[in-house]
Amino acid sequence: MHMQDDFPLLLSTLYDHAVWQYPSQEIVSIGHDRNLHRTTYGATDDRVRQLATALGTRLGTDAGDPIATFAWNNHRHHELYWATSNTGRICHTLNIRLFPDQLVYIVNHAKDKVLFVDPDLSALVAPLLDQFETVEHVVVMGDTAEGTAIPDAIPYEELIDGVEPHGAWPLIDERSPMMFCYTSGTTGHPKGVAYTQRSTYLHTISNLANYNLTDRDNVLPVVPMFHAAAWGYPFQAVTAGAKLTYPGPDLSGEGITNLLVNEGVTLAAGVPTVWLGIQHHLEANPDTDISHMRALFCGGSAVPRAMIDWFEKNAGVRVVQGWGMTETNPVASVATSKLDMEDWPWERQLDVYETAGRPVPGLQIKIVDDEGNPLPHDGEAFGELLIRGPWIAAEYYKDDRSPESFVEGWLRTGDVCKITPDGYIRITDRAKDVIKSGGEWISSLDVENEIMAHPDVAEASVVGLAHPKWQERPVAFVVFKPNAHASVDDVRDFIAMRIAAWWMPDRFVTIDAIPKTGTGKFDKKVLRAEYEALLLSD
Amino acid sequence: MHMQDDFPLLLSTLYDHAVWQYPSQEIVSIGHDRNLHRTTYGATDDRVRQLATALGTRLGTDAGDPIATFAWNNHRHHELYWATSNTGRICHTLNIRLFPDQLVYIVNHAKDKVLFVDPDLSALVAPLLDQFETVEHVVVMGDTAEGTAIPDAIPYEELIDGVEPHGAWPLIDERSPMMFCYTSGTTGHPKGVAYTQRSTYLHTISNLANYNLTDRDNVLPVVPMFHAAAWGYPFQAVTAGAKLTYPGPDLSGEGITNLLVNEGVTLAAGVPTVWLGIQHHLEANPDTDISHMRALFCGGSAVPRAMIDWFEKNAGVRVVQGWGMTETNPVASVATSKLDMEDWPWERQLDVYETAGRPVPGLQIKIVDDEGNPLPHDGEAFGELLIRGPWIAAEYYKDDRSPESFVEGWLRTGDVCKITPDGYIRITDRAKDVIKSGGEWISSLDVENEIMAHPDVAEASVVGLAHPKWQERPVAFVVFKPNAHASVDDVRDFIAMRIAAWWMPDRFVTIDAIPKTGTGKFDKKVLRAEYEALLLSD
Repeated sequence: MHMQDDFPLLLSTLYDHAVWQYPSQEIVSIGHDRNLHRTTYGATDDRVRQLATALGTRLGTDAGDPIATFAWNNHRHHELYWATSNTGRICHTLNIRLFPDQLVYIVNHAKDKVLFVDPDLSALVAPLLDQFETVEHVVVMGDTAEGTAIPDAIPYEELIDGVEPHGAWPLIDERSPMMFCYTSGTTGHPKGVAYTQRSTYLHTISNLANYNLTDRDNVLPVVPMFHAAAWGYPFQAVTAGAKLTYPGPDLSGEGITNLLVNEGVTLAAGVPTVWLGIQHHLEANPDTDISHMRALFCGGSAVPRAMIDWFEKNAGVRVVQGWGMTETNPVASVATSKLDMEDWPWERQLDVYETAGRPVPGLQIKIVDDEGNPLPHDGEAFGELLIRGPWIAAEYYKDDRSPESFVEGWLRTGDVCKITPDGYIRITDRAKDVIKSGGEWISSLDVENEIMAHPDVAEASVVGLAHPKWQERPVAFVVFKPNAHASVDDVRDFIAMRIAAWWMPDRFVTIDAIPKTGTGKFDKKVLRAEYEALLLSD
Repeated sequence: MHMQDDFPLLLSTLYDHAVWQYPSQEIVSIGHDRNLHRTTYGATDDRVRQLATALGTRLGTDAGDPIATFAWNNHRHHELYWATSNTGRICHTLNIRLFPDQLVYIVNHAKDKVLFVDPDLSALVAPLLDQFETVEHVVVMGDTAEGTAIPDAIPYEELIDGVEPHGAWPLIDERSPMMFCYTSGTTGHPKGVAYTQRSTYLHTISNLANYNLTDRDNVLPVVPMFHAAAWGYPFQAVTAGAKLTYPGPDLSGEGITNLLVNEGVTLAAGVPTVWLGIQHHLEANPDTDISHMRALFCGGSAVPRAMIDWFEKNAGVRVVQGWGMTETNPVASVATSKLDMEDWPWERQLDVYETAGRPVPGLQIKIVDDEGNPLPHDGEAFGELLIRGPWIAAEYYKDDRSPESFVEGWLRTGDVCKITPDGYIRITDRAKDVIKSGGEWISSLDVENEIMAHPDVAEASVVGLAHPKWQERPVAFVVFKPNAHASVDDVRDFIAMRIAAWWMPDRFVTIDAIPKTGTGKFDKKVLRAEYEALLLSD
């Protein structure tokens, strides 16, 4: 039996609800000019509707057309999110840190029709415009295009000025794409994921309960809007009627901390390196108080236990770790506690908070061995994590590599995990970073987390390098804090009691900084390439 | 563009998540024998899986088959909810207060294959079994059928004893029905609403955010499980991992209050008459403390302002009003406050809490005049409320009356409402209860609420009766509290300053009790029929 079709899952219904219910709620944003811009849901709606009209009448695009953005987290980017989605268009957020040839590939692959660029980022794309095969208009996101690298572009404010606001949003197929996010794979071209209306709607309302997000909250997405929809926070915040604070280009510890304090941010989200920057700023400015915050949401790469501990004890703020991928739209698990855990000793609670969390209700996970057999959830067995559920992508966008990742309805995450008896995901490693030594697996993550627990260590990365006898052996790359007194021998002694003897890195290399990817993660590819011969003569 | 199909919205995924994450969470239930039964999510899962198997192997039903229940809120009813839904069967909850001919109609209309009956309710259905055309088995929900009115029925415990637990739940079409709820209409046969997996899934996760329901909560649905899925609380509580407390047959003020206190209930849900009973019990037992509760959720009919005020001031518990219909699965709006309202004077806050609330995000509403033209949301204009959204029914189940209620994608609610500038729904009346007097409309609800604000009045109902000159005029039916000293003249004087002069009822009739419908609402049909000639000689 299959009942009659009913009303579709459309983000425009959540948007309209919020504008109606919370017209005076604030949206605060740091502009490309570093000035603070302050507006409301109601005033923003007028501009969203003007932009929605202009996308059609002035820029000649239709429902289904991709509109590219190359921008920081700011109020115009917010307007673009909603004007595209509400009209059935597709917001294609370009990662400003991609290499030029990757940008050219994805703009042409997506067939973007228009490109919106922040003025201070215009110099990065101006040299590429000739290679964008489908882009018909470039809009510079400011009052004027003068002084930018694309002086003949259309100024955003001119584009929407005097335009008739869009009326009721169209009723469209809930499986229409509303956003393109491309993942920068380790090899080959980036792969595109098309977030549908349905997927993003379900992700939004399913994640609201994680933090009880309400109109009492003020959400600051440090995570870029060009990175997996800023983990969905713009959609969640609007649905809940929360204040939104967009940080613009200044992602320094000082810049973000000032916003947390001055705007009364209650929940902020970003990668661990952002919070490490804030930790350093707070250490240097011990009078600064962010204890009004409810949570620092942290994801994108493993969160150091020591950092969670530091923020809890020194800043009075809970660091909540989450996990996800572009393909999971993106939040799939969150390390929220359960009732009985609140009475546990803090160190035992930390054992939970340092995990990647437990799945958001509605998602299903399993871990499997090399042959695809399910492994027990005993906290010991580890295998590749597979996930499925109603907001998980089912394929890459027009890409023949889909069958490698989407197998029998499950997404292969490429993460190697244990699942604890309590139901929490403990990421052991990326499948490609697991160190295969003498037929056994060593978790590079476990070892580097132990090293980073040393108080004098700022960052550490452990990679497997080719070894003539053991196939691979671990090598640790260590960045000491400024003014640190510890030596690598101290670090070796520090971790000796904490890891199995055969997990001990063969070498400790002191470096100035761990190389990072465009999204701020440790880039082990670079380390492996640079040091590939280090152990070959051992 | 329409992206590839992905994973369906299935309640079994929420269920599996809860059993995995919260195996030791409690389910407490008062049995038909009035004994307290105490179990856990984990132990219940074993029984749900045995029942799921037995529905097929022992009772010969398949996915898509309706299974009728005739039962109180208890743990076996809970097991039936999940064993049917998780296997693609349909739980058809029969309202135990329906008239026999209505029961016969809906069982035959739905084509129920099996009937599950609580032992103490067996006498109500035993005489009807011969008329149930499709029912092949009757199961009595206890250890034995001996001593019941259906002694040859299958005992529930015998049915599942020793049965192999069901394995992984099937992946089914998300638009498969999982529950039938029939509304007892004012005229004609009851109309069936088929709740789909999709509808109930969306209702569940969209409503979680209303109260931030978590595993710290203990939910007591006083609202019957045979009434619109107990407003969805069994599904919401399980999804959140909350404790569940089922009250069984004892819905008295004393019985419910004891559970609130002894089990540590944090959130309870029921119709206003239930809370009035509890208010009276608390007034008589002023040492009883329920201030640990987070909210009393109240719906089904208008909540008296005086009752909200009483619980806030005397019990320290917020009464949260909601609104919905069987056709809206059912919760559609909730009177939650917004940020700035918390600073308002209490009387002004009451103006908000006495409304039917604001729509749950994802739903859209409008009010229209007799010609279907939209009316402004100014708190003054009133018209019929129309609603649409992803969990609103699109039709009645196999019923040619659907076109009367489902018009151009909108559900006609039959409620006459204002919508305040703040976005709250203020129900003025049922369309059929609005009193048409001399070409103007009088809200029967507004007048009876003013009467019930009198401290000596227990209940009051106002209906429009035929009048030779004015078409209709209001008549008030008043039930005084025991030991009350006030007269109807006192009541008339009390409301004179509070309503327009032409809204004043022509007569005040003192009666012992307001007649109630099967779901506990005031039954104005009965009053109108009994007193139809009262004003004809005026």
